[in-house]
Amino acid sequence: MSQKPSLYTSISPALLHLYDVSDSVVVIIDVLRATSTIATALYNGAACVIPVDSVPGCIALGKELGAITAGERDGKVAEGLEYGNSPFEYPRDFIGDKTLVLTTTNGTKLLHMALNNGAPIVITGSFPNLDAVCTFLLSQKKNVLLGCAAWKDRFNLEDTLFAGAVIDRIGEHFHINCDASQMALSLYKEAQPDLYEFMKAKNASHYQRLTGFGLEKDIRYCLTPNGANVLPIYRDGKLVAG
Amino acid sequence: MSQKPSLYTSISPALLHLYDVSDSVVVIIDVLRATSTIATALYNGAACVIPVDSVPGCIALGKELGAITAGERDGKVAEGLEYGNSPFEYPRDFIGDKTLVLTTTNGTKLLHMALNNGAPIVITGSFPNLDAVCTFLLSQKKNVLLGCAAWKDRFNLEDTLFAGAVIDRIGEHFHINCDASQMALSLYKEAQPDLYEFMKAKNASHYQRLTGFGLEKDIRYCLTPNGANVLPIYRDGKLVAG
Repeated sequence: MSQKPSLYTSISPALLHLYDVSDSVVVIIDVLRATSTIATALYNGAACVIPVDSVPGCIALGKELGAITAGERDGKVAEGLEYGNSPFEYPRDFIGDKTLVLTTTNGTKLLHMALNNGAPIVITGSFPNLDAVCTFLLSQKKNVLLGCAAWKDRFNLEDTLFAGAVIDRIGEHFHINCDASQMALSLYKEAQPDLYEFMKAKNASHYQRLTGFGLEKDIRYCLTPNGANVLPIYRDGKLVAG
Repeated sequence: MSQKPSLYTSISPALLHLYDVSDSVVVIIDVLRATSTIATALYNGAACVIPVDSVPGCIALGKELGAITAGERDGKVAEGLEYGNSPFEYPRDFIGDKTLVLTTTNGTKLLHMALNNGAPIVITGSFPNLDAVCTFLLSQKKNVLLGCAAWKDRFNLEDTLFAGAVIDRIGEHFHINCDASQMALSLYKEAQPDLYEFMKAKNASHYQRLTGFGLEKDIRYCLTPNGANVLPIYRDGKLVAG
């Protein structure tokens, strides 16, 4: 009997250190909205997306590269940047062949942590590129760590739901001895008939925050599978379509 | 409209620092088996239970107080201690009026963290004393932090299920803006028809570990509500029946 690779789910960046990622594909999950927007920009032909962790860093790199700069703080385009975190800001006729320098807090932090911990392969996952992520993970036959970006280290529902969606599709091909993964799968199966209504009914903290900014349309898009089915993979400091 | 107190769930000791507990009742939850055993010993008349974090500390304090010493490491009574972590080791005719010095890793660590973070009231919770915990929390009209002891900082199903059981019973009396609490409630509602079968079906990591030691009976007891309905409350270094 061939040994299956293992799969674990880390539900907060503050727990990432508990997992050995030195031989794993790490999936960075920041459903609302960073990794959904990254998938969308690459799907629409962006040359690459460069994730940076600070607004000044974003401004500096954008200037150096002549790239588009984007990022939000507290629901508004951050001062000194040009665009926001909404996937709808990045249609093909705007973002095609461009470089996007994007600053996010939770997702970028987790991505850098995964790299620092020695992860050999880092990709980003979101509902818009769910199938691309699953196909890639199956093809690699390596251990997997599903890394939820969470919100300031607090557990959130939407990133865990995405982890559950991945496990629901490809979990049988992995050895799973991880209560967090089992929980994610349970949660996803409950939510799966209508992810948006689940988030609303559960009064998810991020649902509240974004609807407060009038972003229901963003939430619906970010919870819908395969609208931007591309694989963002991290190479030499950039996320590119794999 | 009177303001409801808040309720949060911390699913790992590594996330406790994210919550302000300086004005909260903190419930230490270590279902398999520390807090179930603490409730059982106090229910059966123990004078107090003193939680300590190391085997040498347990031996020293037991000698000083002429108390019963207990604790396990890797599923066996730790060297130098007298008894183990099973609630069935503490019937009334043995533990009545005695002091039990108990060393556990996950639960004791979390309890000390809560105290160090300034929690004014610390109690322990488990299914055997579920109703006593709920009654106390309602009576206090204070903020609540449900603190899961987890397993070496990793999320576990059983502690989260207990948090969900508390929220299911008394959540409506609290303001809950906490995705972890919503998740715990969802998980509990799914598991509630048969918590043991849920743990088994989910192949929970702790279920595996304890059944490997032949402890199915312990697991069933630790997942059954109100078999030892007492309130362990921390006062001056000791857990006593409140």
